[in-house]
Amino acid sequence: MSVTAPRGFRAAGVAAGLKSGGATDVALVVNDGPDAGVAGVFTTNRVRAAPVRWTQQVVRGGVVRAVVLNSGGANACTGPAGFQDTHATAEHTAAALTASSPRLRLGAGDVAVCSTGLIGERLPMDKLLPGVRTAIRGLARDGGPAAAVAIMTTDTRPKTTVVRGAGWTVGGMAKGAGMLAPGMATMLCVLTTDAVAGPELLDAALRAATRVTFDRVDSDGCMSTNDTVLLLSSGASGVEPDEAELTAAVTAACHDLAQQLVADAEGATKQVAIEVVGAADEDDAVEVGRSVARNNLVKTALFGNDPNWGRILAAVGTTTAAFDPDAVDVAVNGIWVCRGGAAAEDRSKVDLTGRDVTIRIDLHAGAAAATIWTNDLSHAYVHENSAYST
Amino acid sequence: MSVTAPRGFRAAGVAAGLKSGGATDVALVVNDGPDAGVAGVFTTNRVRAAPVRWTQQVVRGGVVRAVVLNSGGANACTGPAGFQDTHATAEHTAAALTASSPRLRLGAGDVAVCSTGLIGERLPMDKLLPGVRTAIRGLARDGGPAAAVAIMTTDTRPKTTVVRGAGWTVGGMAKGAGMLAPGMATMLCVLTTDAVAGPELLDAALRAATRVTFDRVDSDGCMSTNDTVLLLSSGASGVEPDEAELTAAVTAACHDLAQQLVADAEGATKQVAIEVVGAADEDDAVEVGRSVARNNLVKTALFGNDPNWGRILAAVGTTTAAFDPDAVDVAVNGIWVCRGGAAAEDRSKVDLTGRDVTIRIDLHAGAAAATIWTNDLSHAYVHENSAYST
Repeated sequence: MSVTAPRGFRAAGVAAGLKSGGATDVALVVNDGPDAGVAGVFTTNRVRAAPVRWTQQVVRGGVVRAVVLNSGGANACTGPAGFQDTHATAEHTAAALTASSPRLRLGAGDVAVCSTGLIGERLPMDKLLPGVRTAIRGLARDGGPAAAVAIMTTDTRPKTTVVRGAGWTVGGMAKGAGMLAPGMATMLCVLTTDAVAGPELLDAALRAATRVTFDRVDSDGCMSTNDTVLLLSSGASGVEPDEAELTAAVTAACHDLAQQLVADAEGATKQVAIEVVGAADEDDAVEVGRSVARNNLVKTALFGNDPNWGRILAAVGTTTAAFDPDAVDVAVNGIWVCRGGAAAEDRSKVDLTGRDVTIRIDLHAGAAAATIWTNDLSHAYVHENSAYST
Repeated sequence: MSVTAPRGFRAAGVAAGLKSGGATDVALVVNDGPDAGVAGVFTTNRVRAAPVRWTQQVVRGGVVRAVVLNSGGANACTGPAGFQDTHATAEHTAAALTASSPRLRLGAGDVAVCSTGLIGERLPMDKLLPGVRTAIRGLARDGGPAAAVAIMTTDTRPKTTVVRGAGWTVGGMAKGAGMLAPGMATMLCVLTTDAVAGPELLDAALRAATRVTFDRVDSDGCMSTNDTVLLLSSGASGVEPDEAELTAAVTAACHDLAQQLVADAEGATKQVAIEVVGAADEDDAVEVGRSVARNNLVKTALFGNDPNWGRILAAVGTTTAAFDPDAVDVAVNGIWVCRGGAAAEDRSKVDLTGRDVTIRIDLHAGAAAATIWTNDLSHAYVHENSAYST
């Protein structure tokens, strides 16, 4: 049910002609209230797309009534004209929504905008704006799944989630299959809830959730210009969860969507959990996990079903984490192929024929732990990313 | 002529059976003096191979009379037993060299050891030590080229260089084709000179040279456990260059070898110079260049002959360098496809059909510049590195 699982939301996904081939490419999510709370987290890339700059401003006010999203173009690195396109999209959406329903009175500042696709090209506004009007006509209480399809780019399947609270619900949709890296996997994500929750509570819950989910996906080490995660509250359930309850539900929703991103990463044949334990602190654990996740020699070895723990150790050695190189243990799919920094169990015991891989690294330097999720580096990744824009 | 171009050096390269297939795999370089000066730079990976730990100790004394190198095994992540193997290799080499010539009186501490190959496996000492004795019998004034061949792993050709000074010479050999990354491309390199130069002068020249050559090669972002660059002086020319002269010659030799490494990088179809100009300082320029060099989406785009400047900008945006995203210009092979952070000249004008690619990034933030050398990410890279150890 995606973003329309909670009460108070309608959504739509339509084809505006931004993508060749007639696939849907414009999604709209409308919050019918009574509340209109919002929180957002965004890419930490300093090169931010126009819709990111716009939506960061809008979210700062704590109120958003609609989110319009398009695939087929990122509107990144498009200069002042690109920002003007985003602004015009928000204005057009607000005006058309207001015209469509006497209950709605929206300004551009009530509309968040998200874009995804190729960087460096202007959006075809002559297609996008009519598409927004079509989406408004198609808004429905069960429109969440269609919206999730319309934001797909190289994704092979839509990503949606629903998490139930006690009398309230969190729903969500996400897209992302490449450029999946820190400090947030490259993606667009809209989460909705009918819980009663103001912007501050939403912000606290969303930051806590993304920190341990999307921020720990590092598929290909490449950070996008467009990452956006929004959390909208309608209050339609009338139930007010406490911060711990809301955080737990939002974290579960983000975790579910993050796993779907890694499962659908471009060209990947493996879904890899890098579990770092025995770290002096959590930052160390994250740094070690990320360093291994980004190492092309580790990633190609996994593609080749090769439990090459030497490359894992070499990647750990490039970090500033506290550890003694002669005390590190490494297990691949449960076989401790490295103990004390040297060969241990026979590597031929490691079964890497399946899609799921777990690498466990024990630094023996403390009690902290973290898991980073990544993928292998395959021929299909090279193929897909060498042919994307040409 | 490799390491035997300068007077005072002999070398050999022989087959000891460490590699399957009968290729040569043990190299020996002997400094016949009269001097025996040495300087070294090593991997900054905290997981250091046994020969790196040994040779760092040896070099600290400023005197080295012989360097024994093997391919076919890195002796990294092999624990205390691996270190003992390195020590035994140095002892054996010293004793056998002393026995071979009444002029030589060597202890283990006079012998540097370098190893390259697969991580995590013990060296077959029963093959290596007889190989050292064979190498000693084969030592010759023209043995440099054979030594350069014996240290090859996935290299497709040997790398040698000769730079002439005024009455003195710098010679060198290197190996390296993968795991080429900072703070030094993964490699073994032995440089020799017949200039009169003590350890302090050698050290100053070598550090200045590697900082702007090997340290700026970033082929695949992966830092090795075994990187070693040694510079030996025999003083046999009787000529004493000043620091500037020696530094210039050693830098030229390192530059030549570094370019050969990038040209022979595993599976690469492109040799890419990332020239960062207009940086606030040199560190910023290096950080930006490295970030672009390591970005898998940039690298796969280059493999696909795609001048995808949006991915370049996204990579620049992940750095902490001083720049305004709306002021960055990017040229690919001379075509300024991006001006002021947005599309400029038509990308179809960019000719990427050749092997050499130049990416020029103008940050418009100052007057500093640096160039990082890298490669594309190809199907052949994935193939070679997914099949290396299995």
